[in-house]
Amino acid sequence: MSRLDSFIRRLEAQRACLNRAAELVRGIDGVVLELGLGNGRTYDHLRQLFPQREIYVCERQVAAHPECIPPADRLLLGDMFDTLPAARNRLGGKVALAHFDAGTGDATANLKLAAGLRPLIAPLLRPGGILATQQAMEGPDLIPLPLPEGVAEGRYHLYQRT
Amino acid sequence: MSRLDSFIRRLEAQRACLNRAAELVRGIDGVVLELGLGNGRTYDHLRQLFPQREIYVCERQVAAHPECIPPADRLLLGDMFDTLPAARNRLGGKVALAHFDAGTGDATANLKLAAGLRPLIAPLLRPGGILATQQAMEGPDLIPLPLPEGVAEGRYHLYQRT
Repeated sequence: MSRLDSFIRRLEAQRACLNRAAELVRGIDGVVLELGLGNGRTYDHLRQLFPQREIYVCERQVAAHPECIPPADRLLLGDMFDTLPAARNRLGGKVALAHFDAGTGDATANLKLAAGLRPLIAPLLRPGGILATQQAMEGPDLIPLPLPEGVAEGRYHLYQRT
Repeated sequence: MSRLDSFIRRLEAQRACLNRAAELVRGIDGVVLELGLGNGRTYDHLRQLFPQREIYVCERQVAAHPECIPPADRLLLGDMFDTLPAARNRLGGKVALAHFDAGTGDATANLKLAAGLRPLIAPLLRPGGILATQQAMEGPDLIPLPLPEGVAEGRYHLYQRT
């Protein structure tokens, strides 16, 4: 499998998991949280999946396509290790869906980042809320859910907050 | 359709066209020319499709994944408007497959670049050789070929050199 093949598979897995997550949170009130804006492609997909919900986006420094920049009052600008704890008053227990994809090519660094962020993300989720993530984030308060058809085990992860 | 959807479609179209091109040049001797290295994902795919062929790569400044960097003697380093004419002695009429994807988000600039490069690329192709390109490059010496199933008209292009 080439890097082009595996990149396509990762994007397809991401999209399938986000689409599934949208079904799963249909009955759950709350906002959406995108952990990392990047070029804004995933944010654009979330906007289309959730036209009625507020979408908050964490980003260190915005470098997205101009049409994919969130409104300033929904942007948590800075290092997530600072902005997520600071957002706990505003967003704690109010997130219906959070999405994380470290997105770098360094698998070890990605896993370390995911492990560090897990305890900052979980308290923001509503009970029953969903976390979709490329990196594993298991824990007692995050129950793994089955993946959509066509997504291989481990390629992406869906968790439900207890 | 979200930007995530359209990005996935573009990558799938690229892969389908390269895979089809590999079948089309099976009986044609010659080298492969990748016009732009980027992160090296497409180069990696070409390496897997053509393990027996020399693959030459144009790039202004290499910034690819370390495992996707071509050997120095197959790298045409610099602006393609300089390197392609300079390569005519070495590669003229010897390319079985060339691939171009401008890859920026600016459609107008992409088309302008493609139009400028077309007369530099066509003479490098062998008669019967294939050009796979995201941007249209029709011309009297480049005959459009049907696209693989699932690739919408205009999303990618396959041409055969007369």
